[in-house]
Amino acid sequence: MTAQSTDNQGVGVVEAHSVEIALPAEGLLLECGRALKDLCVAYESYGELSEAKDNVIFVCHALTGDAHAAGRHHADDKSPGWWDDMIGPGRGLDTNRYFVVCANILGGCKGTTGPGSTDPDTGKAYGSTFPEITVGDIVDVHRLLLLHLGITSLRAVIGGSMGGMQALEWGIRYGEMVERCVCIASTMRLSAQALAFDIVGRNAIESDPDWQGGDYYDSAQRPGPGLAQARMIGHITYLSPEVMTSKFGRERREDDSRFQVESYLEYQGNKFVDRFDANSYLRITNAMDSYDVEEQYGTVEAAMNQVKSRFLVVALSSDWLFPPEQSIELSTALLKGGRRISYCILQAPYGHDAFLVDIEHLADVVSTFLGADSEDNDSAASPHVPSDSEAENHEFIAGFIAPGSRVIDLGCGDGALIHHLVREHGVDALGVDIDLKNIINVVERGRKAIQCDVDEGLAMVADQAYDYAILSQTLQVVHRPRHVLREMLRVAKEGIVTFPNFGRWSHRLYLGVMGRMPISKSLPFEWHNTPNIHLATLKDFVELCRQEGIDILDIECTADNAIGRLLLGIGLRNLGADRIFVRISRGNHESHD
Amino acid sequence: MTAQSTDNQGVGVVEAHSVEIALPAEGLLLECGRALKDLCVAYESYGELSEAKDNVIFVCHALTGDAHAAGRHHADDKSPGWWDDMIGPGRGLDTNRYFVVCANILGGCKGTTGPGSTDPDTGKAYGSTFPEITVGDIVDVHRLLLLHLGITSLRAVIGGSMGGMQALEWGIRYGEMVERCVCIASTMRLSAQALAFDIVGRNAIESDPDWQGGDYYDSAQRPGPGLAQARMIGHITYLSPEVMTSKFGRERREDDSRFQVESYLEYQGNKFVDRFDANSYLRITNAMDSYDVEEQYGTVEAAMNQVKSRFLVVALSSDWLFPPEQSIELSTALLKGGRRISYCILQAPYGHDAFLVDIEHLADVVSTFLGADSEDNDSAASPHVPSDSEAENHEFIAGFIAPGSRVIDLGCGDGALIHHLVREHGVDALGVDIDLKNIINVVERGRKAIQCDVDEGLAMVADQAYDYAILSQTLQVVHRPRHVLREMLRVAKEGIVTFPNFGRWSHRLYLGVMGRMPISKSLPFEWHNTPNIHLATLKDFVELCRQEGIDILDIECTADNAIGRLLLGIGLRNLGADRIFVRISRGNHESHD
Repeated sequence: MTAQSTDNQGVGVVEAHSVEIALPAEGLLLECGRALKDLCVAYESYGELSEAKDNVIFVCHALTGDAHAAGRHHADDKSPGWWDDMIGPGRGLDTNRYFVVCANILGGCKGTTGPGSTDPDTGKAYGSTFPEITVGDIVDVHRLLLLHLGITSLRAVIGGSMGGMQALEWGIRYGEMVERCVCIASTMRLSAQALAFDIVGRNAIESDPDWQGGDYYDSAQRPGPGLAQARMIGHITYLSPEVMTSKFGRERREDDSRFQVESYLEYQGNKFVDRFDANSYLRITNAMDSYDVEEQYGTVEAAMNQVKSRFLVVALSSDWLFPPEQSIELSTALLKGGRRISYCILQAPYGHDAFLVDIEHLADVVSTFLGADSEDNDSAASPHVPSDSEAENHEFIAGFIAPGSRVIDLGCGDGALIHHLVREHGVDALGVDIDLKNIINVVERGRKAIQCDVDEGLAMVADQAYDYAILSQTLQVVHRPRHVLREMLRVAKEGIVTFPNFGRWSHRLYLGVMGRMPISKSLPFEWHNTPNIHLATLKDFVELCRQEGIDILDIECTADNAIGRLLLGIGLRNLGADRIFVRISRGNHESHD
Repeated sequence: MTAQSTDNQGVGVVEAHSVEIALPAEGLLLECGRALKDLCVAYESYGELSEAKDNVIFVCHALTGDAHAAGRHHADDKSPGWWDDMIGPGRGLDTNRYFVVCANILGGCKGTTGPGSTDPDTGKAYGSTFPEITVGDIVDVHRLLLLHLGITSLRAVIGGSMGGMQALEWGIRYGEMVERCVCIASTMRLSAQALAFDIVGRNAIESDPDWQGGDYYDSAQRPGPGLAQARMIGHITYLSPEVMTSKFGRERREDDSRFQVESYLEYQGNKFVDRFDANSYLRITNAMDSYDVEEQYGTVEAAMNQVKSRFLVVALSSDWLFPPEQSIELSTALLKGGRRISYCILQAPYGHDAFLVDIEHLADVVSTFLGADSEDNDSAASPHVPSDSEAENHEFIAGFIAPGSRVIDLGCGDGALIHHLVREHGVDALGVDIDLKNIINVVERGRKAIQCDVDEGLAMVADQAYDYAILSQTLQVVHRPRHVLREMLRVAKEGIVTFPNFGRWSHRLYLGVMGRMPISKSLPFEWHNTPNIHLATLKDFVELCRQEGIDILDIECTADNAIGRLLLGIGLRNLGADRIFVRISRGNHESHD
């Protein structure tokens, strides 16, 4: 992640390119069944293409974006490209390392063929005759561009919002060409609410008398008010209610006492009319609305089975247009398909647009994912050397696990355990943790992790998807231990649970003689600030397993000092053990084996 | 709450009324400074007015509602009034008991004077010349109606959404006339996001060429598309995203393969154009957007100081247009003003419109609030006789409390304790509980309660607003005991904490000898399913108070059996006590006294 240079100027002055793509005689066949005879694509690139052409990152822009993702078109250019914060030397997409390409999408109005382009058959703008396009068509056109540029493999495809849909579609269609995919604030299909907003936006354009059925290019009038209205609706959905309150509240303008939010929306609407085309807005929102992985591939499973790329799925906490549930749905589908995927959620108060404006953690997680070595690579970075007791912990757990098996680690922390298990025991491992920093650590080690609360259940994980589910020093901090144990044995054939033993001799003395809640090396907190809210002795745990019909296959105990080891030595495990390691499975009467 | 009749027919056939209100020579002076010369009000009523005229409930309708709240206009009338589920014999507003009145609002288009009414000066519709109105104007007009009907006092005013704004304004302006106010899914002022949606809706109407600046009444064309567009936007905001998904998802129509949600919105838009007037929509949304208690009364405090009515504030969980935070903000302001207020939140998946369609708990909580006797009345219902141990608990706590003081009970349960303290010790008491059923129980006893999680802090309660904060058998179930203790001594001069003693002799034996987590009468749960997640001994508690600079003013202990009582008798409190009662205050070095 160390940049060769962290030039604050970013990529500097950049050049816009435009290429005519050579098409076969039948033209470019679209998914709707119609064909385009001409195809022009506008693109830009940043950084240097390596000799092996193996350092290419393709950036997919969102609904109203364009090819100008970074840098400035001339020295006095006031506004840089739309993702300039993310692209440049030492930035999230590091141009010291990668060759970054971004291209305008099919149907757009920024240089790639769209409704405003000239139809070679008529010599006039397509207008109403421009075909309906799909996200798949958009991806196909960008692939043609890359092939035209001599690029046949991509280090990564990345996009947010509708750009994330394109990245996903790249992964499904051209997985062999794309090593990694990053989908930010995106989805496999829009929600009914998001559809509804788009429908009302299109209704505004089509209700505008100046729209003229879409054939307004030769007319003096353009459907400005309708397009502005659509943009205003869109803008509300791009911001979280919190940021709208903090930016505008109920403030009024001094001159005409209108609400500030009114003049903001009006400004955004008018600015958009100057830079965007109404028919492009219609075609592109239709493509976005129609995108539905399930509809296109029959089932979500069928689509996921085609995926070969490694995925990073990033949700934004305050995004209500492409809400985190949709990123979770996508991650769940990829997981169920056995794909290599990490998932995280960023605290981003700005709303859906946060990926454009609030990129602190985004750059970090994305650059980590792009830079991490392959999971199959044993030389993966190991940023942290485990302590002795951690190493002991790892070896005890490893002792329970068959080499080469599939493991899920609940509450994986910084990934030290799964990293150890992958390197030393050749397992396939997924980490689960609630903390973003831990997810980034795991990804940095070249491993996989999903960010979720173990207490909320493991809804993202399919039944019996793993051989072992590990719950290491986590049982006592969960809110519903019984539920978590059930979930472990739902997602895995066996469970490995390690926990501090509340029944150890010193804890008993603490309470029995001193009349205080015990504090020890394994339970270092005071009663009121402890995360350890469900304490158990070994006997308690064994009794719960009995009640739950859970078989205990192995028990190992460790003690921190001589008294404990002595007690263990004479078989008094509940009195002597500091830490307990238990391997469990569903009782035979309910076994899935 | 037992109805004399639970006629499934509701109120049956009802009659619409319209009255001309006699105005002084200068007409009806509006808050904008202009006056109306004529005033007509459309209203309906249900139930019988009592001889003392003391059973009147006035219902305030929302944005696009009207006076027809219940019943049918003729025997074959297919759709009943807009709140028919709520109004009728045995319903939430019980017409066997109350005389319910609903009237169309000023500026409307359903019989009360509005932009489509004839201007007596010109003999034509007001159109663009109709003045801007306010929520205050709307309330004033309804007060004139009631005075016209000979009604000078109201049992209650109730409304949802913009109707809740009117109910609030009734309470501020005419508190001496209104005994109780119910505000459902409402606010003291719209959020920036809600303003933004209204702004875009008005923009759609005003951009419609057929709007003609508002003077379209003599024209063949009306601004149908613009009004439909505004309604479509509104409709999206009235539903939760979840209900949009479950109602429509991404389903398409069979005939033209359009999304179902598209034809739903189009239908709603067109239906609205048939029944509503664009200028009324503009004037009423402007009144709603401009409503701001702070702006109108200088400060929120100044407004709340005028309130005399008892309030019930009801939030709806999935409402994102008037979100629960806004009901909490209103409740907080009322509480800080020392007003009599209860607050609850209903689980209502439908969204903002839930108060119109999903009224199961709403009818219950509203009828309970309306039917409860006054707090000052000693004969208030006592639905539950406390058990012996409960009664002992109450007496121990009462022993700590000065008669006539102000008390807040955190985790108040069904309100038995505060009911006891109010009746027997003349205190002023507020209950706090997380459970709706408990809030309803407290309200039924004629007491006050707010629904919130003690763990989230008591942000609704001002500093030092109470003499005593009680935390009875709740310390061990909260997630942040230290934080809760701090909050107690922020909102009250003294705290009274009762908790089970983990240090009692039998607990020590359980762990020490049996090696199991203790189970007892005071701690009846197993380790894995216990809500008691922060257990402490008396010594532990005393040590925490020392760390926190909290003074312990009194300690009382009780024991359940002879051994415990014996130990208490010889002064071994940490060994003998089952339950501990402690009175605390901020140490003198930090005292607020």
